[in-house]
Amino acid sequence: MQNYLLTLAYDGTNYCGFQVQPNGRSVAQTFQDGLEAVLHSRPDIKGCSRTDAGVHALGFALNFHAETRIPPEKLPLAINQHLPPDIRVLCARVVPEEFHARYAAHTKTYLYRIHNHPIDSPFDEKYYTRVPRRLDVDAMQRAAEQFVGKHDFLALCAAGSSAAAHGDTVRTITDCHVTRKGDEVDIEVTADGYLYNMVRILAGTLCEVGAGRMQPDAIPGILASRDRSQAGPTLPAKGLFLEKVDYDL
Amino acid sequence: MQNYLLTLAYDGTNYCGFQVQPNGRSVAQTFQDGLEAVLHSRPDIKGCSRTDAGVHALGFALNFHAETRIPPEKLPLAINQHLPPDIRVLCARVVPEEFHARYAAHTKTYLYRIHNHPIDSPFDEKYYTRVPRRLDVDAMQRAAEQFVGKHDFLALCAAGSSAAAHGDTVRTITDCHVTRKGDEVDIEVTADGYLYNMVRILAGTLCEVGAGRMQPDAIPGILASRDRSQAGPTLPAKGLFLEKVDYDL
Repeated sequence: MQNYLLTLAYDGTNYCGFQVQPNGRSVAQTFQDGLEAVLHSRPDIKGCSRTDAGVHALGFALNFHAETRIPPEKLPLAINQHLPPDIRVLCARVVPEEFHARYAAHTKTYLYRIHNHPIDSPFDEKYYTRVPRRLDVDAMQRAAEQFVGKHDFLALCAAGSSAAAHGDTVRTITDCHVTRKGDEVDIEVTADGYLYNMVRILAGTLCEVGAGRMQPDAIPGILASRDRSQAGPTLPAKGLFLEKVDYDL
Repeated sequence: MQNYLLTLAYDGTNYCGFQVQPNGRSVAQTFQDGLEAVLHSRPDIKGCSRTDAGVHALGFALNFHAETRIPPEKLPLAINQHLPPDIRVLCARVVPEEFHARYAAHTKTYLYRIHNHPIDSPFDEKYYTRVPRRLDVDAMQRAAEQFVGKHDFLALCAAGSSAAAHGDTVRTITDCHVTRKGDEVDIEVTADGYLYNMVRILAGTLCEVGAGRMQPDAIPGILASRDRSQAGPTLPAKGLFLEKVDYDL
């Protein structure tokens, strides 16, 4: 038995999220079907995170233990032949026996994409959220810097989180920045972990700042309040991408 | 009568190009239908260029003379209500009587988008071309600089061009650069005018350089040859965007 670490990209539009769910088609289930067609067995898979319904991934990581004569560098091609085109295995490698894609992750980086224009885009709106009002990216960047560090992020956590129920709401954001290219505003955040809907609420809060409805220096007070109602709205899933996961390998 | 200058964005996937054609649905025709619904007249429109079938636009410019009580700032919303969602009017203004969107253009900027990865993207492939082999962007940039200046671009001109038939093949490229962000490689070129398929052939030539099949310093010789077969292949239309048009206004 070898432990395989795979990196996937997927378009989350038609999935109920990564994790297998009682209702709806999950990325994990669809991936396992493809994997089974190649391996003739159905190993348990460990994902680096549970992405929500509609969230996309550029570099999702998962691992599983299996026995196969297919060399790791040939696995992506072999599995991709049995996957729908909206899920792609990008690379595969063998990792130590005890490696776990979720617990071994140092940091995960998410990207939130905004189309910042008063008029709908003529291009498919599957991969970003539109914010009509011109966003002040400098103010957003000043606010983003306030999120960096070890904080209690309960104010950025949606109701129904098991982490919140267990009082486990301290996380460390190591990087958070906002950039504009033309009408596209990107928010990138790297952290050791995330609470339920945390990136979408963080992005929504930064947009409040960008629209002038909140000041950049309001962020520390919002965090200290531990009150979800003090933060901005939860932006839609379709603008969110799991960009990459960092491991010590 | 006022002369109106409008900026449009469109997804060219389902159109035979900007210009009205005997066969196929053009952006111009579709736009005119929407305009007619608002103005109750069908003015002639002058586009800044003829984009090919499948080419997209982020900032296409056109003008027309018309009489309407709708103030220019309200025209985009009014016209957009009568256009399909893959064509959007972004802004409108009144310009001098004699202004012509094509002849008044100082420069036009095109963007060519490449997804540079050995594996298909799981995201819609409508807005870029995939190049599997890892591209050397530094080499491409050195080659791109060789295109800047006033040159005879006949070597980058597809057959059937009327400009070529008239010996009118000298253009000035004022800027040409290549940038990578992750797996996306963007080629941006600004010029006072373009020959038939010039940007797609220029992009194809830069990809030959990026793949190591051509040297950056081969560009001057290719231009001097005035021979299409010396340049690289014509890349697909779907990766090409008319980004903006510059006027003295």
